[in-house]
Amino acid sequence: MGEVCVIGVGLTPFAKYRDRSLAEIGWPAVKQAIEDAGVDKRDIEAAYCGTALGGMMAGQRVLKMLGITGLPITNVENACSSSSTAFRQAYIAVAAGAYDMVLVLGVEKLTKFGGGTLPLEREDFEVTHGLVMPALYGMRARRYMHDYGLTEKQLAGVAVKAHRHGSRNPDAQYRNEVTVDEVMSARPIADPFTLLHCCPSGDGAAAAIVCSAKTARKYTAAPIRVACSEVNSGKYMTGFRDMTSPEITVRGARQAYEEAAIGPEDVDVAEVHDAFTIAELLYYEALGFCERGDAAGLLEDGETSLGGRIPVNPSGGLLSKGHPIGATGAAQVVEVVRQLRGDCGDRQVEDARVGLTHCTGGGISGFDHGACSIHMFAT
Amino acid sequence: MGEVCVIGVGLTPFAKYRDRSLAEIGWPAVKQAIEDAGVDKRDIEAAYCGTALGGMMAGQRVLKMLGITGLPITNVENACSSSSTAFRQAYIAVAAGAYDMVLVLGVEKLTKFGGGTLPLEREDFEVTHGLVMPALYGMRARRYMHDYGLTEKQLAGVAVKAHRHGSRNPDAQYRNEVTVDEVMSARPIADPFTLLHCCPSGDGAAAAIVCSAKTARKYTAAPIRVACSEVNSGKYMTGFRDMTSPEITVRGARQAYEEAAIGPEDVDVAEVHDAFTIAELLYYEALGFCERGDAAGLLEDGETSLGGRIPVNPSGGLLSKGHPIGATGAAQVVEVVRQLRGDCGDRQVEDARVGLTHCTGGGISGFDHGACSIHMFAT
Repeated sequence: MGEVCVIGVGLTPFAKYRDRSLAEIGWPAVKQAIEDAGVDKRDIEAAYCGTALGGMMAGQRVLKMLGITGLPITNVENACSSSSTAFRQAYIAVAAGAYDMVLVLGVEKLTKFGGGTLPLEREDFEVTHGLVMPALYGMRARRYMHDYGLTEKQLAGVAVKAHRHGSRNPDAQYRNEVTVDEVMSARPIADPFTLLHCCPSGDGAAAAIVCSAKTARKYTAAPIRVACSEVNSGKYMTGFRDMTSPEITVRGARQAYEEAAIGPEDVDVAEVHDAFTIAELLYYEALGFCERGDAAGLLEDGETSLGGRIPVNPSGGLLSKGHPIGATGAAQVVEVVRQLRGDCGDRQVEDARVGLTHCTGGGISGFDHGACSIHMFAT
Repeated sequence: MGEVCVIGVGLTPFAKYRDRSLAEIGWPAVKQAIEDAGVDKRDIEAAYCGTALGGMMAGQRVLKMLGITGLPITNVENACSSSSTAFRQAYIAVAAGAYDMVLVLGVEKLTKFGGGTLPLEREDFEVTHGLVMPALYGMRARRYMHDYGLTEKQLAGVAVKAHRHGSRNPDAQYRNEVTVDEVMSARPIADPFTLLHCCPSGDGAAAAIVCSAKTARKYTAAPIRVACSEVNSGKYMTGFRDMTSPEITVRGARQAYEEAAIGPEDVDVAEVHDAFTIAELLYYEALGFCERGDAAGLLEDGETSLGGRIPVNPSGGLLSKGHPIGATGAAQVVEVVRQLRGDCGDRQVEDARVGLTHCTGGGISGFDHGACSIHMFAT
């Protein structure tokens, strides 16, 4: 399989677009990616569109707005990993030589559901009994606090960092800084979470132009290389499960580092799936950024803040940038590509050469039917 | 890209399974495909699941029932072409060497919507003004009747053939034969269609095991080869459009025949997207089985019936076998593979060596944002 590069990215700022259709939310991201890459839209040979709840033919509806028709369009769903899974399909297709230049798109309009809790699958036994996402992550948080002595104040620090970063990102849904006190005194959602421990509901889109290394060189002297691409689903595990160690991410990270021949110590910037504050801490450990139990220390030492050893979620992450489900994976790619190019202004990670994106979704019933995608990028 | 084969197929008979979950509808098809292939489920390296309206993580929910977890699972949506598009992603991944053995699954439970008209996308301007699928195809039928002198009686003949074939298929939703009079006197739906001109709503699943040619030879002396794989979307066309010539199928067929180096005259059996009676006639012409305007003659001469020159929809097609949207594309593959193996009992097409599947979906607003997939298979 050949080398694959990203040569253009675009994003529709995350927000609540109650008056826009899904197509109207999607097309600005695509247009920006095409212009950023400097390609002719007619050179795009196929498109992969990730959406979780966008309805039938989401990609076709978006691309029609720009007159991009006639090409193979594949809509991909994998809950929160929808557009990162779409990215993987694009990667495989280009690496295989099936297509030379491909568009990846992620788009979602959650405001059509009125905000708040999502229309989760009623076939899922645990969901019908109340195990919605905030409850699931709340239990993980309580368990982690029990096992490793994490305090509510430390946990609130994740939201503080997210908003500090997000305040520097013009594309973020929330660009206000928050204090530990504000996080802790916000209205309760699911113990120990207040509202500010939870990512918001919202709308948005993100896009990337993906092509072969050979073609990339025609458009830019500095393409961003895809160093690895992994998508997994959860493993059914009998017997003991450790709910503070997301097996799917641990396994995915091991595969990703091996495939890229890059270790966690080489990662300069990461966008990880901080749907809830505790999630980011669990992923520090699962991705090997620190040892088990050391996540709060890593955060408190500022290592994962801008200016630290390995800035995590410089975009603001899901907590501050927002989480329009199907758009999130592609938006992580947009942020990491911009970071590796040095295009991020006052949220720029200095000398970023290797970036990682991590998205995980589904898997309400324990960890065993979620999806997890990890991609790495390098200059 | 390497050669790709199908070594096992399975199907959950199409029916109305009001009391079964999507997962319960899906797993029997997968189990049958695995047993048919004679593979160990642990040898499946990735899965592609097509569903149009099955909700989030459909593939994960189905495969968990069989303990198939931990592998990359990608859910694909492309309206009626959902699982045929999933098949194409599997094809690309295996041809590229990204995976050696892959599962393709299509699954749908339409009874959860209560039957009748589907929950179509409200963002589509034409749909909100009444241009639902039966209305769209009804207009195409009237235009074809005007242009080529097709009669209502001739049109009813498509349904008669479909049910004659379906009556021989134990997996079909409707296994009763119907007469021209019965078709014409059924209750009206959208002029000139009565109920029997329209495919039914229902549930079902279909699955296939896809692998490299090298691996296929370990399991069977007679693998079925994928001769070509095409997925397209509709083209935006300014100026004149001919509503009786589905451009997307015409273009897809041209590409498919070229890729496979097989002409329409070489096709021994075809499963085409007969969602409405007129559709089958339009596709005879679009796929090159006859000249423009000759479709009714081809049907009346028995050429597309079992025993004819090119039997179309020996399974009963969408009209009689049924059309659980996301399952349809994979089910067409199941039928063609069984035909090429000679496994079809009293609906067997004699000496079938080359088979074609054709699925098309979406595209309410004219033809310009539909999806169309064409695959060819050979012994």
